[in-house]
Amino acid sequence: PRSYTITLLPGDGIGPEVISVAKDVLLLAGSLEGIKYDFRERLIGGAALDATGVPLPDETLSAAKESDAVLLGAVGGYKWDNNEKHLKPETALLGLRKELQVFANLRPASVFPQLVDASTLKREVAEGVDLMVVRELTGGIYFGKPRGFDTNENGEEIGFNTEIYAAHEIDRIAHAAFKIARKRSGKLCSVDKANVLEASMLWRKRVTAIAQEYPDVELSHMYVDNASMQLIRNPKQFDTIVTNNIFGDILSDEASMITGSIGMLPSASLGASGPGLFEPIHGSAPDIAGQDKANPFATVLSAAMLLKYGLEEEKAAQRIENAVLDTLNRGFRTGDIYSTGTKLVGCKQLGEEIMKSV
Amino acid sequence: PRSYTITLLPGDGIGPEVISVAKDVLLLAGSLEGIKYDFRERLIGGAALDATGVPLPDETLSAAKESDAVLLGAVGGYKWDNNEKHLKPETALLGLRKELQVFANLRPASVFPQLVDASTLKREVAEGVDLMVVRELTGGIYFGKPRGFDTNENGEEIGFNTEIYAAHEIDRIAHAAFKIARKRSGKLCSVDKANVLEASMLWRKRVTAIAQEYPDVELSHMYVDNASMQLIRNPKQFDTIVTNNIFGDILSDEASMITGSIGMLPSASLGASGPGLFEPIHGSAPDIAGQDKANPFATVLSAAMLLKYGLEEEKAAQRIENAVLDTLNRGFRTGDIYSTGTKLVGCKQLGEEIMKSV
Ligand SMILES: CC(C)[C@H](C(=O)O)[C@@H](O)C(=O)O
Ligand SMILES: CC(C)[C@H](C(=O)O)[C@@H](O)C(=O)O
Repeated sequence: PRSYTITLLPGDGIGPEVISVAKDVLLLAGSLEGIKYDFRERLIGGAALDATGVPLPDETLSAAKESDAVLLGAVGGYKWDNNEKHLKPETALLGLRKELQVFANLRPASVFPQLVDASTLKREVAEGVDLMVVRELTGGIYFGKPRGFDTNENGEEIGFNTEIYAAHEIDRIAHAAFKIARKRSGKLCSVDKANVLEASMLWRKRVTAIAQEYPDVELSHMYVDNASMQLIRNPKQFDTIVTNNIFGDILSDEASMITGSIGMLPSASLGASGPGLFEPIHGSAPDIAGQDKANPFATVLSAAMLLKYGLEEEKAAQRIENAVLDTLNRGFRTGDIYSTGTKLVGCKQLGEEIMKSV
Repeated sequence: PRSYTITLLPGDGIGPEVISVAKDVLLLAGSLEGIKYDFRERLIGGAALDATGVPLPDETLSAAKESDAVLLGAVGGYKWDNNEKHLKPETALLGLRKELQVFANLRPASVFPQLVDASTLKREVAEGVDLMVVRELTGGIYFGKPRGFDTNENGEEIGFNTEIYAAHEIDRIAHAAFKIARKRSGKLCSVDKANVLEASMLWRKRVTAIAQEYPDVELSHMYVDNASMQLIRNPKQFDTIVTNNIFGDILSDEASMITGSIGMLPSASLGASGPGLFEPIHGSAPDIAGQDKANPFATVLSAAMLLKYGLEEEKAAQRIENAVLDTLNRGFRTGDIYSTGTKLVGCKQLGEEIMKSV
């Protein structure tokens, strides 16, 4: 059987609960498709801080780098909220992304027909939304230098960051996005602020040039302020969106909320080679941690993305996706997506129901 | 009578049509409150480009600076879309803001009860939304240096911008926002990305310090990605939002679209002293220009903001605001906000109806 090493990073809050379900589902779907795994669980975030004093221990990083894929739960919690920046759980995420060089963050936002009423958008606007935000994840203002604090000529404190893109950083995310758009509906919208920012002007120029290599994909450009409006006005006009790190942070979250159920949404972060990083888009939800109330669907769907994009195990991935739909159709729901007439269950039981459907 | 010099900048597309209505309404409301105006009309945007070769002629700038307030229509159009950056109509906006030093951009987003169904959000979510985004307008990444293009050590092209804030820039916008929040419901939410950006960390530190001077205002902080979600999930949780230039660009447009009718929304840009700049948030709509189809409400409401915030003529402002509500109640609508059972009229006739209600 094909065998893969998977690093599991449960993290904080509800992380361990949802990772535990996703691991079981991965195992089952894998065994049915002749896949074996070597799971290695490591510390990250607050859990790592408490145990080792740092949010991203070297041991965790090297395990992640040596594996075939990384599945992460969630990091963060009240306990560490007032830590200094380099001792915040979230810092581990930025470090992991940068070290794994996963420059392409895939954030699907699909409205499940069974959950369309969870959206705050009108049914006719939300129904059928199925879009993919491709966010540049290892460049731009998140990592640009110079950055920091200083004193200006008037003796005043200043804080500054640098939004910067080099041609190859734009090119590789553009190629990733065109390839994804090609497999979807063939429509790609590149979002920037090229009417103001030079970094965006270069972005637009490179994306436009690369479009020549994808004549089957229809490329359009939109300013970020307009995109934030259009996502609300008519989200169905979009298929694949590609944008920089900070705009992608904002727009992918906006797009998620259109679905109304962020407990359902997975993500994948991919590099040119090496392990990808897969995680639900929701946070660690410390308020419900340890109470068996967490929704494991997003992490289970992240495991499906891990199989599909990380290991190219399409069949096992498809099994998981189908199992999620089937479980929804059979009416099982956690509290966050519950509505009258459906069956309210805990995280564990939902996991068992998903397994029945795999 | 009190007398004011007003610079009118009709600009491009539907700009002249909506400015013409707003001017008449200003005149009437003013005359009923003992106000006289000296109107000076000047060129800006594409109109200025065609006539003088530049989008913001010196003559326009000096007229604006010497007046008591500036009312702008809209700039831009297909014709100039492919111009170089410094010859784009939109550049005039950035120049005008910087030269007038209008650092505080007030962007109300209120759902009119008469138009609640225009929102793509469910009625119960949209109904009663009444929020104010206070956007920093003359700093941050829009104007930060260094900026531009260069070649890196690998011989690759790079594009870069600087997000930078000095203490006094944050302080003055924070004071403006606290004062506005105090006059509204007393709740202020400051939006930043302080978990990643140093410029945001300074932002949060200064806003928190200034909060001491406004014990009657309840301050909260939110990350920009979360804010973009919360605006869709539950916009009524917000009253006043304060944020930087680029986040404000994105979030104020998102907030506008929640109302469903951007043809209704005004804006005000204010400095420490000197004339304020007042304009509708919509663009020049070249597709309907010159057809008497434009919705003048947003510009008329911008004229009300001009009276209220620019000239401290509360009574005349109130007259205009009431007239808008009355005209809506009497059922008059332009095409963009038309629905069955209301009366479809053109820009000019809507202006006449507003005048009847002043
Ligand atoms: C926690 C934070 C640093 C992170 C980001 O901004 O990238 C998060 O918002 C995300 O989108 O994964
Ligand atoms: C036209 C553009 C430069 C401008 C901006 O980004 O500030 C516009 O989007 C706005 O919000 O007024």
